[in-house]
Amino acid sequence: MKLASYKDGSRDGQLVVVSRDLSTAHYANGIATRLQQVLDDWNFLSPQLEELSVSLNHGRARHAFAFDPALCMAPLPRAFQRLSGSAYPSHVERLCQAAGSPAPEGLRTEPLLAQASSDTMLGPTDAVVVASEKAGIDFGAGLVVVTGDVPMGAAPDRAIDAIRLVMLVNEVNLCHVAAAEQARGAGLLSARPAAACSPLAVTPDELGDAWKGGRVHLPLQATWNGKRFGVCDAGADMKFQFGRLIAHAARTRPLRAGTLVGGGVVSSKDGSRGFACIAEKRAVETIEHGEPRTDFLRHGDTVRIEMKGLDGQSVFGAIDHTITSPAEAEREADA
Amino acid sequence: MKLASYKDGSRDGQLVVVSRDLSTAHYANGIATRLQQVLDDWNFLSPQLEELSVSLNHGRARHAFAFDPALCMAPLPRAFQRLSGSAYPSHVERLCQAAGSPAPEGLRTEPLLAQASSDTMLGPTDAVVVASEKAGIDFGAGLVVVTGDVPMGAAPDRAIDAIRLVMLVNEVNLCHVAAAEQARGAGLLSARPAAACSPLAVTPDELGDAWKGGRVHLPLQATWNGKRFGVCDAGADMKFQFGRLIAHAARTRPLRAGTLVGGGVVSSKDGSRGFACIAEKRAVETIEHGEPRTDFLRHGDTVRIEMKGLDGQSVFGAIDHTITSPAEAEREADA
Repeated sequence: MKLASYKDGSRDGQLVVVSRDLSTAHYANGIATRLQQVLDDWNFLSPQLEELSVSLNHGRARHAFAFDPALCMAPLPRAFQRLSGSAYPSHVERLCQAAGSPAPEGLRTEPLLAQASSDTMLGPTDAVVVASEKAGIDFGAGLVVVTGDVPMGAAPDRAIDAIRLVMLVNEVNLCHVAAAEQARGAGLLSARPAAACSPLAVTPDELGDAWKGGRVHLPLQATWNGKRFGVCDAGADMKFQFGRLIAHAARTRPLRAGTLVGGGVVSSKDGSRGFACIAEKRAVETIEHGEPRTDFLRHGDTVRIEMKGLDGQSVFGAIDHTITSPAEAEREADA
Repeated sequence: MKLASYKDGSRDGQLVVVSRDLSTAHYANGIATRLQQVLDDWNFLSPQLEELSVSLNHGRARHAFAFDPALCMAPLPRAFQRLSGSAYPSHVERLCQAAGSPAPEGLRTEPLLAQASSDTMLGPTDAVVVASEKAGIDFGAGLVVVTGDVPMGAAPDRAIDAIRLVMLVNEVNLCHVAAAEQARGAGLLSARPAAACSPLAVTPDELGDAWKGGRVHLPLQATWNGKRFGVCDAGADMKFQFGRLIAHAARTRPLRAGTLVGGGVVSSKDGSRGFACIAEKRAVETIEHGEPRTDFLRHGDTVRIEMKGLDGQSVFGAIDHTITSPAEAEREADA
């Protein structure tokens, strides 16, 4: 099934079930109002949502309405935990090579995960508000899974079974801020403003044969100001599958239902497919030409991130948003 | 007012108001069931809780009952964000000196904050489950504030006004795991299992004159296996007050209501007051004698953290818990 949270003025939105082809939706009224409720009580509530989903897909749901992604918050507009992984070694290796620094120890043998913010997850068309263009504003397109409860010490194959939902994410990164924070050694904080999510979170079965071994074997499209920037396969060069990432996070503590685990910026060994973030393109340019030739994002720039299924249909709907200054955001809020 | 969350089998517990002297409590029924609800709608709900608090303190609340900290979850049993600061430079400096590494850049001029886990906040008497004693198990006693909504770019004095509640925290740290993670550069994850909270979260006015300039000027007592380990003043050597820490976190993004911001392990320049974690004592021993003389925590060890007010009464109730192996925790759950 495919789930979304409609804007209703509340902090958590209103849960809706969306048809497979994204054409219609139906409020989950009478089952659950918020997605976190469903994650808290998955075994009881998800079969009821599945039933509604089947009705909707067969055109039999009584109060269905046309689905509008512009009315969506993030599926989980605030989450109790987000962990951001680096599951694509080619991404990290290119960045390190360009910077002339060694790749992190065990990059290809042990997952690298960082605690990330989740008090605000931006909706798919919400403006990304960044004060200064000098921060080195970058997008970072990737996949995130939403887990159920995971016990401490869970093995990777058990951890896979805890994956409830999959969605797209844009992990906005302020590259110049990141460089300064990395030097101080406490991890990234100010370099990582709120991330944005696709309109839909979908159960893994919606991916069909593309969901295999804890990976999503589909190309992720990243578009910058209407021009294709990259179409990287999200499965091919993902070194650590999602079950492995979750198990790594659960080594010393349980994870509670509603934890988001991200694979990090998708990357292909084959650079001809393009890139899922600007920093990696700049790194390749630096390696090849001695300096970067592509600028970072500017206010007014748009970024679109989408993934088509084996049937050519959009699986999650698109993240499609604009980088905005605080002043412009205020003007729009007043309008 | 003083608030707690009673265990009721749910993930968020049942909100109770507790009397100033910790003797009696009253369900917040009819006002709010969960603390997060109150934080989401503070201006509307907190005056109603204040009214109940006044009745309770005057012995006029009709359905008051004896307060039992053993029935408490963390005041906010799961939170949408936790940020862990390093506001006491002497703590970081001693650790770095003992390790022979330089202190982080700008340690005394710019706050250092890290994204930390908050999907599980342990209750004050919940067992701290750690698989291996070889991890270098340490406690870390400190203060945490709970914020309302903080806009991006808020100044420190405006950020102070966003502080809703204050509580004690034990940031359990696996020191040997931390050393390995720090070397990989993605921040601490497995080194930081769930933190534990005091039974009570209190509004700053409950601290009276001890709440001054965004700091809590009271000694924090840490006790290990019944023996006093440290009594460090939490205000004296706190370089960055809580408003400054919050403002730093809000530099590039807003913070949503219910964000926890911690000052980090409390530390006194004057080492004769003892310490609020074992690692700092070991660091001092290493500096003085060439090697540490104090071991880390072992399974079965108890840690108690408490703070007495200017009137000698316990302000937050005590964190009082046992380090436990997974096997022992399972035996207790079955019993």
